[in-house]
Amino acid sequence: MSPARARDLGIVPGALPAGDLNAITDVPGVRVGHTTLIEGSDVRTGVTAIVHDRLTCARTLNAGLATGNGYGKIVGTTQLGELGVIETPVVLTGTLCTFRAADALVSYMLAMQGNEGLETVNPVVAETNDGFLSDMRRRPVTEEHVLAALRGAAAGPVAEGAVGAGTGTGALGYKAGIGTSSRIAGSGGSGPPVTVGVLVQANFSGTLTVLGVPVPPETAGPDTAGPDTAGPDTAGPDTAGPDTAGPDTAGPDIADAGNSCVIVLATDAPLDSRQLARLARRSIFGMARTGSDFSGRSGDYALAFSTAEHDPQLAGAGPLPDSALDPLFVAAMDATEEAILNSLFMADTTTGFRGHVRPAVPLDRVRRLCAARGVLAPGN
Amino acid sequence: MSPARARDLGIVPGALPAGDLNAITDVPGVRVGHTTLIEGSDVRTGVTAIVHDRLTCARTLNAGLATGNGYGKIVGTTQLGELGVIETPVVLTGTLCTFRAADALVSYMLAMQGNEGLETVNPVVAETNDGFLSDMRRRPVTEEHVLAALRGAAAGPVAEGAVGAGTGTGALGYKAGIGTSSRIAGSGGSGPPVTVGVLVQANFSGTLTVLGVPVPPETAGPDTAGPDTAGPDTAGPDTAGPDTAGPDTAGPDIADAGNSCVIVLATDAPLDSRQLARLARRSIFGMARTGSDFSGRSGDYALAFSTAEHDPQLAGAGPLPDSALDPLFVAAMDATEEAILNSLFMADTTTGFRGHVRPAVPLDRVRRLCAARGVLAPGN
Amino acid sequence: MSPARARDLGIVPGALPAGDLNAITDVPGVRVGHTTLIEGSDVRTGVTAIVHDRLTCARTLNAGLATGNGYGKIVGTTQLGELGVIETPVVLTGTLCTFRAADALVSYMLAMQGNEGLETVNPVVAETNDGFLSDMRRRPVTEEHVLAALRGAAAGPVAEGAVGAGTGTGALGYKAGIGTSSRIAGSGGSGPPVTVGVLVQANFSGTLTVLGVPVPPETAGPDTAGPDTAGPDTAGPDTAGPDTAGPDTAGPDIADAGNSCVIVLATDAPLDSRQLARLARRSIFGMARTGSDFSGRSGDYALAFSTAEHDPQLAGAGPLPDSALDPLFVAAMDATEEAILNSLFMADTTTGFRGHVRPAVPLDRVRRLCAARGVLAPGN
Amino acid sequence: MSPARARDLGIVPGALPAGDLNAITDVPGVRVGHTTLIEGSDVRTGVTAIVHDRLTCARTLNAGLATGNGYGKIVGTTQLGELGVIETPVVLTGTLCTFRAADALVSYMLAMQGNEGLETVNPVVAETNDGFLSDMRRRPVTEEHVLAALRGAAAGPVAEGAVGAGTGTGALGYKAGIGTSSRIAGSGGSGPPVTVGVLVQANFSGTLTVLGVPVPPETAGPDTAGPDTAGPDTAGPDTAGPDTAGPDTAGPDIADAGNSCVIVLATDAPLDSRQLARLARRSIFGMARTGSDFSGRSGDYALAFSTAEHDPQLAGAGPLPDSALDPLFVAAMDATEEAILNSLFMADTTTGFRGHVRPAVPLDRVRRLCAARGVLAPGN
Repeated sequence: MSPARARDLGIVPGALPAGDLNAITDVPGVRVGHTTLIEGSDVRTGVTAIVHDRLTCARTLNAGLATGNGYGKIVGTTQLGELGVIETPVVLTGTLCTFRAADALVSYMLAMQGNEGLETVNPVVAETNDGFLSDMRRRPVTEEHVLAALRGAAAGPVAEGAVGAGTGTGALGYKAGIGTSSRIAGSGGSGPPVTVGVLVQANFSGTLTVLGVPVPPETAGPDTAGPDTAGPDTAGPDTAGPDTAGPDTAGPDIADAGNSCVIVLATDAPLDSRQLARLARRSIFGMARTGSDFSGRSGDYALAFSTAEHDPQLAGAGPLPDSALDPLFVAAMDATEEAILNSLFMADTTTGFRGHVRPAVPLDRVRRLCAARGVLAPGN
Repeated sequence: MSPARARDLGIVPGALPAGDLNAITDVPGVRVGHTTLIEGSDVRTGVTAIVHDRLTCARTLNAGLATGNGYGKIVGTTQLGELGVIETPVVLTGTLCTFRAADALVSYMLAMQGNEGLETVNPVVAETNDGFLSDMRRRPVTEEHVLAALRGAAAGPVAEGAVGAGTGTGALGYKAGIGTSSRIAGSGGSGPPVTVGVLVQANFSGTLTVLGVPVPPETAGPDTAGPDTAGPDTAGPDTAGPDTAGPDTAGPDIADAGNSCVIVLATDAPLDSRQLARLARRSIFGMARTGSDFSGRSGDYALAFSTAEHDPQLAGAGPLPDSALDPLFVAAMDATEEAILNSLFMADTTTGFRGHVRPAVPLDRVRRLCAARGVLAPGN
Repeated sequence: MSPARARDLGIVPGALPAGDLNAITDVPGVRVGHTTLIEGSDVRTGVTAIVHDRLTCARTLNAGLATGNGYGKIVGTTQLGELGVIETPVVLTGTLCTFRAADALVSYMLAMQGNEGLETVNPVVAETNDGFLSDMRRRPVTEEHVLAALRGAAAGPVAEGAVGAGTGTGALGYKAGIGTSSRIAGSGGSGPPVTVGVLVQANFSGTLTVLGVPVPPETAGPDTAGPDTAGPDTAGPDTAGPDTAGPDTAGPDIADAGNSCVIVLATDAPLDSRQLARLARRSIFGMARTGSDFSGRSGDYALAFSTAEHDPQLAGAGPLPDSALDPLFVAAMDATEEAILNSLFMADTTTGFRGHVRPAVPLDRVRRLCAARGVLAPGN
Repeated sequence: MSPARARDLGIVPGALPAGDLNAITDVPGVRVGHTTLIEGSDVRTGVTAIVHDRLTCARTLNAGLATGNGYGKIVGTTQLGELGVIETPVVLTGTLCTFRAADALVSYMLAMQGNEGLETVNPVVAETNDGFLSDMRRRPVTEEHVLAALRGAAAGPVAEGAVGAGTGTGALGYKAGIGTSSRIAGSGGSGPPVTVGVLVQANFSGTLTVLGVPVPPETAGPDTAGPDTAGPDTAGPDTAGPDTAGPDTAGPDIADAGNSCVIVLATDAPLDSRQLARLARRSIFGMARTGSDFSGRSGDYALAFSTAEHDPQLAGAGPLPDSALDPLFVAAMDATEEAILNSLFMADTTTGFRGHVRPAVPLDRVRRLCAARGVLAPGN
């Protein structure tokens, strides 16, 4: 089966509707750009940029951070915490390229029209370790690669799977990459509906779990026959612990441990930094549903930002009351779950550094298992 | 079906073995005591105490806290964060009785042999809102109730369900209460196995999820026929969102919203405060697996402590290396998941304040659904 | 010399003007009440309440907390951090009475008109150890004492020195207690001036420092002759370290160590929780100027709240931009410094538990030293 | 008067003795290297590296961070918080060069013998804005500059003033730069004395305060006559607020606002991460004594690390008890105060970008003022 989005397979987390694109770009003004780097047999990495026109240093967007496990090199967090805003686009890349990407993001901001006198920038760059498929020590990402992702950022559908910063990543024993999803949520009665969009760079260990159905990698042979076709799957969570050997040849320290999951959440709901951090925390909880083992070697962060104009001169510009946030929390969990599934389901089997192979999720097996357990959406 | 522990139904989260009692008391030295308060039709509350002989103010145990959602009145956290220890037992009770319980815990510590000159105490008390079944405004918990729980704390099996601080709580649409579980984990190669024990006071909203299988309350009639007996359940997560009306008569603001989940984790692994906070965070993630919607009105905290003697004069007294923690993280998630299931499965239907009813989880339905989806342990 | 406020001695920290009362009650709507408990020779303690009409649980005020050293039993902080508000008055008392005071504050809120259905309260109570002058183990504070402070809270001048929660405290080797001060600050250009008011419960170790001039307790004989009259004081900071024995008879572990400093800051500037935490941090920094040694045994907290209506329907209701905060930061540091000096200068020598004596600050000596070093305000 | 260290002028904060060098290098194993960049009239910046042989990624040192004000681009903090260690040297530089420096530090670690297979590095780089004297937008720092500072790091005396990362900085209205100091403190009774060493990169606003004596820049003419020579100085803190115009030509937004102060503290005391964060907080408090106004535009961080081997197999390897930390806290405050004074007193007047001038502190005036107020050490 070709790569497909979760929803097209009948796999739909939660009850809230998705936005038109089912993508972070459903939040008005949010644009996404990718630079995908595939060089020879050893480089499988890239850059993904999440951009908004009001991220100019002079203008900022409210933002909040949640840390699931802080084993990661995310740049820009202390100032984000102090001032409650981001002032640059968010850039994602591979671990050892983080600082070159941050420096390129500085270049981008300094060169922005109106920033001719700018002398301070707080670039926000997150990363994940794609070393299983890509030769990280080369640090292949250049300033041009970062600028290309920033300048190419566009509204509309977002490329998923093995692209951009997800070119070399893997999750839950399979090839993963970039995934996105969105939800429309009522904001507590009187206000208009708001959009919550999520984009993930997935790269973490555990047991793939699809709407509660575990789908561990098969340890013997191709996905031809076996228990899947005969009835309820016997490879439940009790037989597939986090130590299950995957199909790759490297040891678990590289292939199966941690590695990091970066979650970027955008919303047009008017929220302040504290509230956005609350929302970001729910993205980490949503990650739990997909089977993460939350290894201590993973840098699992969720960064949430609001595109709502927070001009104090505007009536109604204040943040939503906290009592209105529960629907947004559900939206954040559900959209994160679906974005992670998309990051997996949209990725093809990839061979890279040292011949390492990350297999694509066997979608027909996923679908069979989900159908047998009755969790597909009606009509699937 | 009578109340039963999850494991006795064939419901076994994760692959690690449980301790002998499958309880927090598997951690040597940990004792648990309950005071259950049932008065007339309106009081359904109580006290649960987790005790260790080295919690004397003069002696302390390393401890760390994780906050899933800080809407709760937990007492004692800032000093815990500063010094990285707890110096008193941990007491659980209902929200409005928190401070009377803390004052009683002060009495207990002042009266302890050797503490005749003690002039400062940092009591640790956590709480959850049991107002749906109990008339909270009465604040029925007295010093004697707290002292009884502390003095009655015992090693051995732990009473679960509607007892102690869980007498009036409910979770995921059903009656819940106190639950406990444990895991034995290797601590990274050379060291001996360690025990991770969890006790929960469960009281939170969402959709009950058992090993990935959603079990929302049925909205129409008794659990007689329907899709459960005919094959895979159709009431998947896509049809049962967090707004599903439960069988109780009160509005969702009381019955179905937040309310808090307190998780206490004990381990004999030598860990420092920072590491225990990391472990505690995994308990919050384990809570995600049971279907919590992480409402903003819930006070969801996990407090982890280590019983390991941390005498700097002892060889080998230092904390484990962080690289050895992954098995403990898995243990924390799995034991928390099972403790929450036990808190539900061991609770009987309870009627209380204003005639409100919290129904017991329909265990035969749970078992049928789990069997149909093949997630029961072999032999079940 | 009789007790006097610092300003009346010509001791004026900083250049910003004070409010009319030079008190926290300069912030419109803020009221303060004290209950002073002096019983026999052994009880020297009390309660101080900071009250505002909009603290009703249903209505709240934005608030933020800063922790200088978390060795203290402050109640209510985790929910404050999560939701960014306080919903009750702030009550101060002695350490071991904290939880009785919190329970009394619960009673007060439950009994408030309109709160007949209230089932959850997050009381905020801070404390400090007054055990040198008061027999703490008696826990003499009753619900009536707390309610009296709350109900007696008034606008207008605030009683300072050995009153309320400051009845038994001491700081920097001298008797201290409650002190207050305020500043008027421009809020960055276009907006109207705002008021920053501070109230402290001072109880901490170090070397009293008045506008940079150290005034350690004299170790030999009364304050008759000596270097003070002969020229610049030789008892500079190089000869008076934190281990200098004070005039009291108890060991340094009780008399001179830590003990806690609670700082409450109110402002009518429209600030959100994050900004208020930033402001609160400056109060801790202001404490440094008075000579605190920031002992690890002190519970040094600053809690800041804003009385500005933050109704999102109001134009201009949003928080100030962070770029406008510097004058408020200066105001917070200066007002805290002066409030601490007032807490000392307004306190009389006090004898208490076990005959312990805390001497009043020798104000004529302070004045002589300050005059000799040229730091008094012009005309003094 | 030529540049001089504070101590050589008789200016000695606190009573604890300094180490032999009165420098961070008094902590055994700590080495410091500088690269000073002066190019034409526009570049005044550089790099300072604090190095220890056990910072190899494979081996780490316990570390903790304190944030005074988080307006700064420090790199590496989230992993430091999660794991409680640093694994690379600490590098300081100018704001916009931060990420190039971090990338160079990655190069350094990857090239280290034994790290041939290393695929993840958490570089720690802090920064401050030297844009008043240096054209930051050029980003003149190259990988070679960083490697030179790292490779040139040496034990022994540390160059201070306008060198390395302090080449272009200024503080309190004067030219500042790098400063260092140390203290020897008893560690609570039985143990041997321990050393606390501090190095600062000073660059912040406020009013220079020397042992409590304010020394604001003079606003009219040279330091010839005036109150200084006639007796106690009248320019007390009440007449010199943070808005006093300095002698430079740029507006206060660049010259006098914030800009950041980075404090690095090393100790051979065996402390864990939590304790080191407590120690680091005291460095921020020590900064308060020098007259910082803690502007919201300053990135004020203190990073503390311990060189004690924390091998759990070694007897006595556990951290000190928290009750033993008070002398270390005093040491941290005093050494930070003296290091900041050294950073100022050792710096020469510097002219740089756009002809901006930062004047050296007038040391003879400082000495006269301090002598008149009697705060010099005996014999001075």
